[in-house]
Amino acid sequence: MPILPASPTDFNIIRSAYAELTVTDLEASRAHYVDLLGLVESARTEDALYLRALEERQHHCLVLRQAQRPAVNALGFKVSCEEDLGRLEAHFRRLGLPAVYVQKEFQGRTLRARDPQGMPLEFFHRMDPVERMLQRFDLYRGAHVMRIDHLNCMVADVQAAHDFYARQLGFRVSEYTETDAADPQLWAAWMHRKGNVHDLALMNGDGPRLHHVGMWVENGLDLIRICDIFAAAHLTDRLERGPGRHGLSNAMFLYVRDPDGHRTELYTGDYQTMDPDFEPIRWSVNDVRRQTFWGHKAPECWFLEASEFVWNGEPVPRQPARLSERPAIAT
Amino acid sequence: MPILPASPTDFNIIRSAYAELTVTDLEASRAHYVDLLGLVESARTEDALYLRALEERQHHCLVLRQAQRPAVNALGFKVSCEEDLGRLEAHFRRLGLPAVYVQKEFQGRTLRARDPQGMPLEFFHRMDPVERMLQRFDLYRGAHVMRIDHLNCMVADVQAAHDFYARQLGFRVSEYTETDAADPQLWAAWMHRKGNVHDLALMNGDGPRLHHVGMWVENGLDLIRICDIFAAAHLTDRLERGPGRHGLSNAMFLYVRDPDGHRTELYTGDYQTMDPDFEPIRWSVNDVRRQTFWGHKAPECWFLEASEFVWNGEPVPRQPARLSERPAIAT
Amino acid sequence: MPILPASPTDFNIIRSAYAELTVTDLEASRAHYVDLLGLVESARTEDALYLRALEERQHHCLVLRQAQRPAVNALGFKVSCEEDLGRLEAHFRRLGLPAVYVQKEFQGRTLRARDPQGMPLEFFHRMDPVERMLQRFDLYRGAHVMRIDHLNCMVADVQAAHDFYARQLGFRVSEYTETDAADPQLWAAWMHRKGNVHDLALMNGDGPRLHHVGMWVENGLDLIRICDIFAAAHLTDRLERGPGRHGLSNAMFLYVRDPDGHRTELYTGDYQTMDPDFEPIRWSVNDVRRQTFWGHKAPECWFLEASEFVWNGEPVPRQPARLSERPAIAT
Amino acid sequence: MPILPASPTDFNIIRSAYAELTVTDLEASRAHYVDLLGLVESARTEDALYLRALEERQHHCLVLRQAQRPAVNALGFKVSCEEDLGRLEAHFRRLGLPAVYVQKEFQGRTLRARDPQGMPLEFFHRMDPVERMLQRFDLYRGAHVMRIDHLNCMVADVQAAHDFYARQLGFRVSEYTETDAADPQLWAAWMHRKGNVHDLALMNGDGPRLHHVGMWVENGLDLIRICDIFAAAHLTDRLERGPGRHGLSNAMFLYVRDPDGHRTELYTGDYQTMDPDFEPIRWSVNDVRRQTFWGHKAPECWFLEASEFVWNGEPVPRQPARLSERPAIAT
Repeated sequence: MPILPASPTDFNIIRSAYAELTVTDLEASRAHYVDLLGLVESARTEDALYLRALEERQHHCLVLRQAQRPAVNALGFKVSCEEDLGRLEAHFRRLGLPAVYVQKEFQGRTLRARDPQGMPLEFFHRMDPVERMLQRFDLYRGAHVMRIDHLNCMVADVQAAHDFYARQLGFRVSEYTETDAADPQLWAAWMHRKGNVHDLALMNGDGPRLHHVGMWVENGLDLIRICDIFAAAHLTDRLERGPGRHGLSNAMFLYVRDPDGHRTELYTGDYQTMDPDFEPIRWSVNDVRRQTFWGHKAPECWFLEASEFVWNGEPVPRQPARLSERPAIAT
Repeated sequence: MPILPASPTDFNIIRSAYAELTVTDLEASRAHYVDLLGLVESARTEDALYLRALEERQHHCLVLRQAQRPAVNALGFKVSCEEDLGRLEAHFRRLGLPAVYVQKEFQGRTLRARDPQGMPLEFFHRMDPVERMLQRFDLYRGAHVMRIDHLNCMVADVQAAHDFYARQLGFRVSEYTETDAADPQLWAAWMHRKGNVHDLALMNGDGPRLHHVGMWVENGLDLIRICDIFAAAHLTDRLERGPGRHGLSNAMFLYVRDPDGHRTELYTGDYQTMDPDFEPIRWSVNDVRRQTFWGHKAPECWFLEASEFVWNGEPVPRQPARLSERPAIAT
Repeated sequence: MPILPASPTDFNIIRSAYAELTVTDLEASRAHYVDLLGLVESARTEDALYLRALEERQHHCLVLRQAQRPAVNALGFKVSCEEDLGRLEAHFRRLGLPAVYVQKEFQGRTLRARDPQGMPLEFFHRMDPVERMLQRFDLYRGAHVMRIDHLNCMVADVQAAHDFYARQLGFRVSEYTETDAADPQLWAAWMHRKGNVHDLALMNGDGPRLHHVGMWVENGLDLIRICDIFAAAHLTDRLERGPGRHGLSNAMFLYVRDPDGHRTELYTGDYQTMDPDFEPIRWSVNDVRRQTFWGHKAPECWFLEASEFVWNGEPVPRQPARLSERPAIAT
Repeated sequence: MPILPASPTDFNIIRSAYAELTVTDLEASRAHYVDLLGLVESARTEDALYLRALEERQHHCLVLRQAQRPAVNALGFKVSCEEDLGRLEAHFRRLGLPAVYVQKEFQGRTLRARDPQGMPLEFFHRMDPVERMLQRFDLYRGAHVMRIDHLNCMVADVQAAHDFYARQLGFRVSEYTETDAADPQLWAAWMHRKGNVHDLALMNGDGPRLHHVGMWVENGLDLIRICDIFAAAHLTDRLERGPGRHGLSNAMFLYVRDPDGHRTELYTGDYQTMDPDFEPIRWSVNDVRRQTFWGHKAPECWFLEASEFVWNGEPVPRQPARLSERPAIAT
């Protein structure tokens, strides 16, 4: 099997922590993420909105920045201490990958680097503390989003991307998808640091692009309620897929599109994976229960549309998907 | 068994429809019923607040009127047509009971009568139509109260009260509670017109008094959420009993006290009873599963405290409970 | 509007009570309805299986009879007393419609009649009492089906069928669907006797055919759980549509097909309609929120496939749908 | 504050993994844990029953061993690799604490040690793999227990115990309870390795004793359902406390007693704590929302009764609680 064990590292990436997206209308984005989905506003600057979820005590898990076009500026990961940043910087330089320190509001020293696929990553160790809203049930709204759970990316070469995150950054695989060829190809990999199904998912597709940001909700009724809320607001077009249950991860899901097309997955009900001898679970790309355990097919847009990355103000060039296989879609 | 079949009547009482309570601070009541429980405000007059629940298309199910002391002005019942009012008037007069027409805001011609226990009843056939909020999920708050379900009263003589509602007003019994004496006495009766467990419950106690107004919610998680909301608002003292499941009625419940001590039951999960040959279900007053199926005892205040009625501006005199038996209480 | 008020009748139909279906393999049907959906087996005769739901105290709400081909023998309705049967018999004869008494196991005297569309109806007043399983939570399985809720039929002429059930049998309309023509045509009608959204739904289509039997479950998580159960049993092909929420009725739904293709709707969350002045709610056949409030389209099979009726051993001839309009389908 | 940061260690304890309890009647225990709570039977030996939860792929999270009297043989913790066992052995010996290797069925090399309070601990790195039942929804029963979550112990000196687990074994504190004295005393500490609220809780009380084993369920309706199941089985006496929500941990809970009095907490809805800079949350022992966020008091038995430990066949001597403070109890 094409899955690698995580290599030991001299730094410790704790978890996926935030995404920074550019949006074309901050007010429209605010109405979507705060008024409808129920995220909490931590700060509003001249050109950006900083959001967090109900249990989070760190400043933000989603940054929305005003821009001419929607894109993804960075994927943020928390590391265990400031020293880890220096070790990561050295590691990226050894690998010949760009890595520079940048100033980010509301968080400590931040290392900005690029992975071999071209995805912009940011590593930080500290973020400003904020009030935990977990027990302010009187203020709960929308989907009752608890915390950021994961980042899901489309990449042209899943095997190469997986190898990088396993060998170079110490990510472990919980589940993966292969083609059924005699010589099976890695079609997708769910990789984690924090001990549940994933911090980072890699899926075969034209990329690199951000497919979605995964947000944790408490249970399946939260998914039903948020569908009802969007429908009541006459915004059913933002409900792209679900509610349903994934075979892979076992989580219940709902995919929502924001006004710029950025995708959020409301996600709940996966399981623990922190045992070092956890055996990765294999799925065939053609197993209909893999994508929706109940047999529902995903709509074509779910497979084709994603958000492109930006590096130094330039769109990150997109490579065609290495594998042609695609799961069945709704027709 | 001391239960009577419903006698045929020449009028048709459809269901319990509202309660009119007096409160000492309308603002405090509004904060409780609208901001926390999530009822919808239909109208605000100089001295009263008219509330409805999410699925209701009639103007009000709860009227809160400013007064010097908390009490109950009336229990409201909807009848099938205006002619029913005349038939009810004649029927009450035949029985030597007071029955007069009164003007009520936001509803049609209303007959105000008194039952033999002294409880003030109001019968109406029409109420002003209002917008149904059932599918305005974006406006749901608090306990997501769907509709008024029932009225529960403490009366000194349950047998006599039951006989009146069965023989004279055509109410049917779904479940009832008896003492274990050789000659069993009727301790409580759940009576209905609309085809679920009850529109009117009669329980043994010093009375007549209104024990609680029952409001329908969708499921058990609504009960958990409203506990969380009151706790977040530092108002745990308003959570009197539950959440739990009643053996009698099988409903899940939570009892909440308002700022004046008026009690609301949030209630869900009973069953259908419209079959004319429905066999009333008997419970012993000493069966611990009767009051809380899980064996929890109710607190003493739940048995002792209730809201007194007012008739023509005078408190309705209270008679001591005829039966001394009382279920086990939490000690 | 093409909706009629219910005409008064000298008999009283209480509610829809059962469906009798023919199936080709009783064991396969038993595995579906009892082992997976969790219905309770009341009796097993040489050629039939009698099932009930958890709260039901009457013998059966679904009869499955072994036969060469799947079909529908009868739709059962409970009336208030034996005398109603004589009045119904006379009424059908006056209308020139067949009506004969038949012997049915486990239920009292039964009148078998045919409506103008050709649908076989059975009216009864008494059924054998059985143990209520409502509080045998230790025996709950599958979808936790509480009771039968309604019967949904496709008919060639909805207006004519609606007129018959309103004028001749006293059914009331809760919600209905019209075309958008200058002269709007009645596309579907939800009609009830028991005081919730429906006992009988009539939809435009080649008919008469039984589209589905509606069964009440407690909440949305029951729908999620039964999807998981069918998927775990590798029977996702039986999950035809949903879970979702209907705009019309506001109920959450899941449509399941049995081994013979008979359709069951698991249904929860509609509302009360017993007020005589309840104003029927209108929907346009082209309103996407009508069929699934969240905007999901129904699959084509949901619109085309249904179970045919049998009368005296002969299939009831099918007429083409009078209206050509059809809601959007999943493509 | 009396809370210490976790000291670095040369071994890596992954999580709490199992408890081994002695019981007086294996059949009665099996009926409780398997038939009612819904745990999965992994193995049955001559004198023991090995159970796991639905998502678990390791052989057991609960071992029930036949004995003359109920007690606790061991608390099991998983370590990252076999080498960790040698490092732990050396560490315990350096501390002058007993540590010996023992043979345990269905798991790899196991180190048995005793902590300074006298609690018997077992460390292992490998357990026999078993089939994951997570997606066998057709086999779910009872409370739908997903996994073991934590072990909760009463100890005479919480400060000393906390110091040992923080300094010597690298446990981190998520939340803690203090007295309100001018010189606040540590009354309880919730400590973890796996990144949620706890693997091990330490509470002030006569000890050492095991207060309960915490098992993770999916949501609040699972707690309601298991109450219904025990009540239906006429075993309400096994429902000791709840359902409710803890202020501390924010989790929803239900405490159940087994036939020997061993306590299980069904637990759901806490939060993530893997950030190294997570700031422990302080509660006052007198804050009524700490134990039940909704204000409910715990019954006295919950504070007084717990399971005693055994070491080399001898009961571990019990020391009186160092602190006299006790939260309010239900009276």
